[in-house]
Amino acid sequence: MSPHLPEFRKDPVVDRWVIIAAERSKRPQPPRATNEVTLAEPCPFCTGNEWMTPPESLAFRDPLTRADSPGWQVRVVPNKYPAVLGTGDLCHRTNTLYQAKIALGAHEVIIENPAHCVDMGELTDSQFQTVLRAYRDRMAELQKDKRWHHILIFKNQGGAAGATLEHVHSQLIALPMVPREVDDEWQAVKAHYQRCQRCLYCDMIDEERILRNRVIVDNHEFIAFCPFAPRFPFETWILPRKHTPFFGFLSDTEVAQLARALRETLCRLNVALNHPSFNYVLHSAPLQKMQGEHYHWHLEIMPRTTEVAGFEWGSGFYINTVAPEDAARNLRATMP
Amino acid sequence: MSPHLPEFRKDPVVDRWVIIAAERSKRPQPPRATNEVTLAEPCPFCTGNEWMTPPESLAFRDPLTRADSPGWQVRVVPNKYPAVLGTGDLCHRTNTLYQAKIALGAHEVIIENPAHCVDMGELTDSQFQTVLRAYRDRMAELQKDKRWHHILIFKNQGGAAGATLEHVHSQLIALPMVPREVDDEWQAVKAHYQRCQRCLYCDMIDEERILRNRVIVDNHEFIAFCPFAPRFPFETWILPRKHTPFFGFLSDTEVAQLARALRETLCRLNVALNHPSFNYVLHSAPLQKMQGEHYHWHLEIMPRTTEVAGFEWGSGFYINTVAPEDAARNLRATMP
Repeated sequence: MSPHLPEFRKDPVVDRWVIIAAERSKRPQPPRATNEVTLAEPCPFCTGNEWMTPPESLAFRDPLTRADSPGWQVRVVPNKYPAVLGTGDLCHRTNTLYQAKIALGAHEVIIENPAHCVDMGELTDSQFQTVLRAYRDRMAELQKDKRWHHILIFKNQGGAAGATLEHVHSQLIALPMVPREVDDEWQAVKAHYQRCQRCLYCDMIDEERILRNRVIVDNHEFIAFCPFAPRFPFETWILPRKHTPFFGFLSDTEVAQLARALRETLCRLNVALNHPSFNYVLHSAPLQKMQGEHYHWHLEIMPRTTEVAGFEWGSGFYINTVAPEDAARNLRATMP
Repeated sequence: MSPHLPEFRKDPVVDRWVIIAAERSKRPQPPRATNEVTLAEPCPFCTGNEWMTPPESLAFRDPLTRADSPGWQVRVVPNKYPAVLGTGDLCHRTNTLYQAKIALGAHEVIIENPAHCVDMGELTDSQFQTVLRAYRDRMAELQKDKRWHHILIFKNQGGAAGATLEHVHSQLIALPMVPREVDDEWQAVKAHYQRCQRCLYCDMIDEERILRNRVIVDNHEFIAFCPFAPRFPFETWILPRKHTPFFGFLSDTEVAQLARALRETLCRLNVALNHPSFNYVLHSAPLQKMQGEHYHWHLEIMPRTTEVAGFEWGSGFYINTVAPEDAARNLRATMP
């Protein structure tokens, strides 16, 4: 195994995988200021610069325009510096304690606007819909590949959220294993179903709709609320009200409703927190698991207004200085 | 239960606790620049300003000097803005889904130098020894209180590591439960012992001492190495070579050897990464668990040169662009 191929390594103690992607920076890196976003000039994601990215795997574009040329609304391309590779087998290099294997996977970038916009909250409703259709279609397509056990879609906006390019975009990583956080959720959902014959997330939605003190948006199809035990100030989750395990099977009507709920939530966060850096992650059901249908897909939005520190790294325990009831009241009161 | 008391809340899905400490900031906060460290003027940790902190719970000080007055080398005081409280019962507020209880605990600050030093790596060897003696003595003292199931000591140095005051200090939090990360480690150690009748960390030390490609410091009592599957570039762990579950029972000789290993490691990191922000956490055995003696205490040092982003939050999976073998080679080559 070449030392320069990215590889998966498993911590010998806890069930935590890391990707050692040393070829992303050929030598040990000097530290960088954490709030810095690279101002690539020219921007590889702007329309007109399609030649700067690998060939597109999907684009929503005007009729009669050619692939990898202008005329698109949303464009999906393989990541130029992938943390995982689409080729390679799953062979392990292992001794008694240490497991490693080639970091097999897919790593794509969803470019969310042709012009150089840096804040997703400023996109139009129709652009939101196109972005979410791209998420759905890429997920549906990649789900067919039996090598992938999980597909994660996530966004880093702003330097404090780990963004390295400012042009609005999100990323997709398909993995040959179910990552720890999703597996923990899935195990809990399965246990709850076995105990109560009900979906844990459906129960949570019912509870939030009765209490209402943490709810921000509640439309016909989707609910957005601050969760009961949030890690971050103003953390917000969006869930489909109907039990739906897989994001990849959303209808166009559902996509339109989700676009509205997501756009409204991001606009309210922009007003309340003055355009914060944020991450969001889309959790859909693990792919090759029996009983995946007990899962309930959802989107977790995490504004990054505070640094995670030693206590959190050492314990997996979070200190949050804003109660979710206060955050939700604040978000409901803002006019987006 | 007053809404202003800090409270523990458990995520309804995964086994993740958070502390909602809303009284630490009475209202929802505006975002702050993440690299900012408050320049408190005057600094409450400088000698001469002892009146600015709560009364000391421990100090190493010159003979004939009085508590809470100058003449100390290291001083331990209760945190003025505690995330947990020393009083309160363990009563739960709970419904079917949601659990909450008063955030009972102890939260102390270890002030590591009387003069205004901002970089632990610049302290003398004797000052390091006094700091570590303070850690040990406070841990040994708090271990006697049967309410505490775990005591975590951690340090945040620099704005990117979440420090809010720059004067060198670390923190101690005693908790009435074993946090997720420590419990996961402990479960793994216990399982390994049941399988092999050996300590997992002792096995890891043996392996690293044979391979040597990730070792940085290896003195008679302690070893420092970059772990096989590190979350962060240049992440480094320090472990006692002898199987020792509890940090609180260290001898003075061991404290002196640990001081040397820790100081050398921090100095090498300072040279290699140009004085990075960093966190460290000290993991000692859970207190009220049977078979706690299978655990092996250790210190995890995490330089914070990159931001943690959506992929990591969503998966518990880390992307690391520096292989630990490269980081260790680099750290061995630096002259501290």
